[in-house]
Amino acid sequence: MKDFPSFDDIRQAAQRIKPHVHRTPILTCESLDRISGCKLFFKPENLQKVGAFKFRGATNAVFSLSDKEAAQGVATHSSGNHAAALALAASRRGTKAHIIMPQNAPAIKKSAVLGYGAEITFCEPTLKAREDGLNAVVEKTGAVIIHPYNDPLVIAGQGTAALELIEDVPDLDAVIAPVGGGGLMSGTALAISALAPRVRIIGAEPSGADDACRSLQAGRIIPSQNPTTIADGLLTSLGSLTFPILHKHLERIVTVSEQAIISAMRQIWERMKLVIEPSSAVPLAAIQEGQWKQQNIRIGVILSGGNVNLDELPWVK
Amino acid sequence: MKDFPSFDDIRQAAQRIKPHVHRTPILTCESLDRISGCKLFFKPENLQKVGAFKFRGATNAVFSLSDKEAAQGVATHSSGNHAAALALAASRRGTKAHIIMPQNAPAIKKSAVLGYGAEITFCEPTLKAREDGLNAVVEKTGAVIIHPYNDPLVIAGQGTAALELIEDVPDLDAVIAPVGGGGLMSGTALAISALAPRVRIIGAEPSGADDACRSLQAGRIIPSQNPTTIADGLLTSLGSLTFPILHKHLERIVTVSEQAIISAMRQIWERMKLVIEPSSAVPLAAIQEGQWKQQNIRIGVILSGGNVNLDELPWVK
Repeated sequence: MKDFPSFDDIRQAAQRIKPHVHRTPILTCESLDRISGCKLFFKPENLQKVGAFKFRGATNAVFSLSDKEAAQGVATHSSGNHAAALALAASRRGTKAHIIMPQNAPAIKKSAVLGYGAEITFCEPTLKAREDGLNAVVEKTGAVIIHPYNDPLVIAGQGTAALELIEDVPDLDAVIAPVGGGGLMSGTALAISALAPRVRIIGAEPSGADDACRSLQAGRIIPSQNPTTIADGLLTSLGSLTFPILHKHLERIVTVSEQAIISAMRQIWERMKLVIEPSSAVPLAAIQEGQWKQQNIRIGVILSGGNVNLDELPWVK
Repeated sequence: MKDFPSFDDIRQAAQRIKPHVHRTPILTCESLDRISGCKLFFKPENLQKVGAFKFRGATNAVFSLSDKEAAQGVATHSSGNHAAALALAASRRGTKAHIIMPQNAPAIKKSAVLGYGAEITFCEPTLKAREDGLNAVVEKTGAVIIHPYNDPLVIAGQGTAALELIEDVPDLDAVIAPVGGGGLMSGTALAISALAPRVRIIGAEPSGADDACRSLQAGRIIPSQNPTTIADGLLTSLGSLTFPILHKHLERIVTVSEQAIISAMRQIWERMKLVIEPSSAVPLAAIQEGQWKQQNIRIGVILSGGNVNLDELPWVK
């Protein structure tokens, strides 16, 4: 049974990963402030290594291993940013990453993972095949499984983004981040509640993948069933570690339409000159769409990542 | 007759514009270092207000005016980033900007300028019509003309980007910037040669608009004739102030192909997650294409801007 991460784990993670990650800047944009009616402070984790906050958590987990554990390698099943993050973190530690990936994963994801020196095992595109593939690799190699979000070290690593945000902008009224499996949101909640307890902590989720919103309302984990959203990083459901943290610390989760996500995404490309993936646009969509109406407050907005296929943009037909 | 700007003018410009501009961060990217064979330190002026370095020079010029001058308004002819920059700078000063713009300018440029509260006078798309239009507006209003690059205050303002770059990364071997009319390159050369005289100063220019390269070789200004390049910010020719500064300080100007520009542009979008316009990609293209071959040196790279039509990307057919 895994322990819940604490704020102290986030502090330690920040020290541990410091030599390996970018300290991303804080960016502001007057025209988006005007459109949104609030003062926004963006933490652009699309500028993080591998193009996503995921590198923070993966690096913290991989560099927390003993030398003996590390020698066995690490493993995960993922077709997304966690796979690339774990691959690069393992390469930095000088160990092997084994990634179980569905055959139909986009070529761009495969080549990113291979580019970081990981070994891919392909499987059928079902959760069962992925889990079976992962177990087989672990049995064969003894590799340590690093879960994409339901892992205290991963959560602590993700929390370092909010730690930096609040160090750089201490006088926020609220912080908002996207919710998928809840790793980023949990780390954010732990960091903010410890460092700035009067700051409101808000989650943002696509209406088409609103398991976290429904779970918080029900008081228990309600997994996603056939979620559909352009925000492909937010399809996963909360885990046994992330649900209780969110339940304890979040003021609420705001759900948003697909149209609001695409509109917010384009605004950030056009006005902030940042390439972000749809998942990253969900918090701005939540600020703008009107279900959570705020005026003139100071909001920290975590932009989760920027890995998107430049040949297929949602506004180009 | 206008005076040449000095390094002291850049220092003063930095103080003057500080309350109004973003101090853009320094970004690095290991995969671009690997591809390029050098260690690159990017100064992303696409993240500057109005999405381009031009806001530095326009702000310096507008805030250098006496109250009496400022009350008359400012004017320029431009369909590009200088127009938007001057419009916003004038609005900040609480004065009027008059922009003479060809009727066929892209709608996105018109709306940017109007959004900043400037007044547009449309004219035929010829240089003569633009100059006539500008003179007519100045005669009527008494507005002060702010030239996009051949103005010592504009050049001094543009030099503040390199000033910040060398403050943040003092131990560079070279600095490279794109050359259009030469305002950014002149300011960069003045800042770098004063602050870090052993740093090599390199210009980058599209082969299809290589007037600066030919001018430096000939030792006199050779204006562009029908330049064609995707780098639409670099079509202009050097001026009477910028040519002598470049002639004195530049080691050389590297020219690059259209293909190298598009490739470098896509790399920066894909790997750095930055929306840049083609002109911004010209320095990276110069580092990569091979005419100026360097190994393992530390290069400061100024990314000039990010104003591009997201519906028409060069790699999307």
